[in-house]
Amino acid sequence: MTDTTPPEDRMQALARALQQFADARDWGPFHSPKNLASALIVEAGELLEHFQWLTEAQSRDLAPDKLEAVRSEVADVLLYLIQLSNVLGIDPVAAAQDKLAENAGRYPVEKARGNSRKHDEF
Amino acid sequence: MTDTTPPEDRMQALARALQQFADARDWGPFHSPKNLASALIVEAGELLEHFQWLTEAQSRDLAPDKLEAVRSEVADVLLYLIQLSNVLGIDPVAAAQDKLAENAGRYPVEKARGNSRKHDEF
Amino acid sequence: MTDTTPPEDRMQALARALQQFADARDWGPFHSPKNLASALIVEAGELLEHFQWLTEAQSRDLAPDKLEAVRSEVADVLLYLIQLSNVLGIDPVAAAQDKLAENAGRYPVEKARGNSRKHDEF
Amino acid sequence: MTDTTPPEDRMQALARALQQFADARDWGPFHSPKNLASALIVEAGELLEHFQWLTEAQSRDLAPDKLEAVRSEVADVLLYLIQLSNVLGIDPVAAAQDKLAENAGRYPVEKARGNSRKHDEF
Repeated sequence: MTDTTPPEDRMQALARALQQFADARDWGPFHSPKNLASALIVEAGELLEHFQWLTEAQSRDLAPDKLEAVRSEVADVLLYLIQLSNVLGIDPVAAAQDKLAENAGRYPVEKARGNSRKHDEF
Repeated sequence: MTDTTPPEDRMQALARALQQFADARDWGPFHSPKNLASALIVEAGELLEHFQWLTEAQSRDLAPDKLEAVRSEVADVLLYLIQLSNVLGIDPVAAAQDKLAENAGRYPVEKARGNSRKHDEF
Repeated sequence: MTDTTPPEDRMQALARALQQFADARDWGPFHSPKNLASALIVEAGELLEHFQWLTEAQSRDLAPDKLEAVRSEVADVLLYLIQLSNVLGIDPVAAAQDKLAENAGRYPVEKARGNSRKHDEF
Repeated sequence: MTDTTPPEDRMQALARALQQFADARDWGPFHSPKNLASALIVEAGELLEHFQWLTEAQSRDLAPDKLEAVRSEVADVLLYLIQLSNVLGIDPVAAAQDKLAENAGRYPVEKARGNSRKHDEF
């Protein structure tokens, strides 16, 4: 007999590793969805902080050390998003796939092209 | 000759699909890192809004329609995080893997166990 | 003839002082509404960070040094809110007075009393 | 004998009115500092949402209906900031006055003038 289970992908492996990380430290009581959603937005603030005084053009052309700092904040946001998804029993990648399919219906190419008003309602 | 490239995983496929989605709509000019980091925190706020008046216990036990609404916001946060990563040339999953390895060094099990003070500094 | 202009109140004085502060440092070009709204939410994140792992009960009973740190973040949020209002030509206190009057109509006492559902829609 | 108490200013009157508003609706149990700090950042997100796809120049030149919508969000942020300050026993205006005095020392005019790097560290 062959095992036909698809191999765990990187996000699933991260979800499992984060669960073990928190369990080993008895952090379950702190990790309510309410608290994790707060931690996530706090990290999103630290991410935005890097861009707040930059022009849009400057934000597209970060120096290497700045880019590295931004990458570290992107990681923090993703780690909390995965942990929040864990405690809620959500698969965040599947949720994003569903949402993208939905958005394709809401923003048909011909109407949305370069349209900042449509975009504004995104 | 065999192609030894590992198959694209779900996050890489999402990143590619989102790039095509934005390109088809000429949204590139709107999608500066500065703007995408703003859009991300706005969605993180919509996510937190579902929890703001709940107790932590209530946040662990959401009704199905509320859970579905939360799942939709989780998707929005992840979609913007991927798009931000795209324009910055970051692999968000690799960044999270690196950060988790780093955190294992910063929060050794024996010191961090159930310790809210350590946790507070997380 | 007597001057019947009402004396400037504390918020108006702060608004004027902040304008002078920014003008003296040539910070006008950085202080677009877009940037100030970003700076405001970044500070709101630093404020929330103090509470993210606390229980609600703990958040009501802060140690003196923690309360002092929170007070400093409250100040930062208010300073950016005033600066944003300055550049938009808004009087934030008048706006809040108007909104409170509006909320009194939306949340009549008899219906809203202790009602978390109504509250949830607040 | 004359009463030498200075007259209540607009922010103090708002703080008192908001306390009565919440008390009349028995909202005290919902209004922990933790919850109010969450509500504040959620409103700050709704404020930022108006600016997220605008250029900085566009954000300085809002149409009247957009400006009115922004004013309403500024009001919401201020109302939660006052309520948070109420439950913590903080005077937010005094806190902001103290912080501004402190910032004058940290950002001397001659060094900070038009300096985006200094500004970035603000």
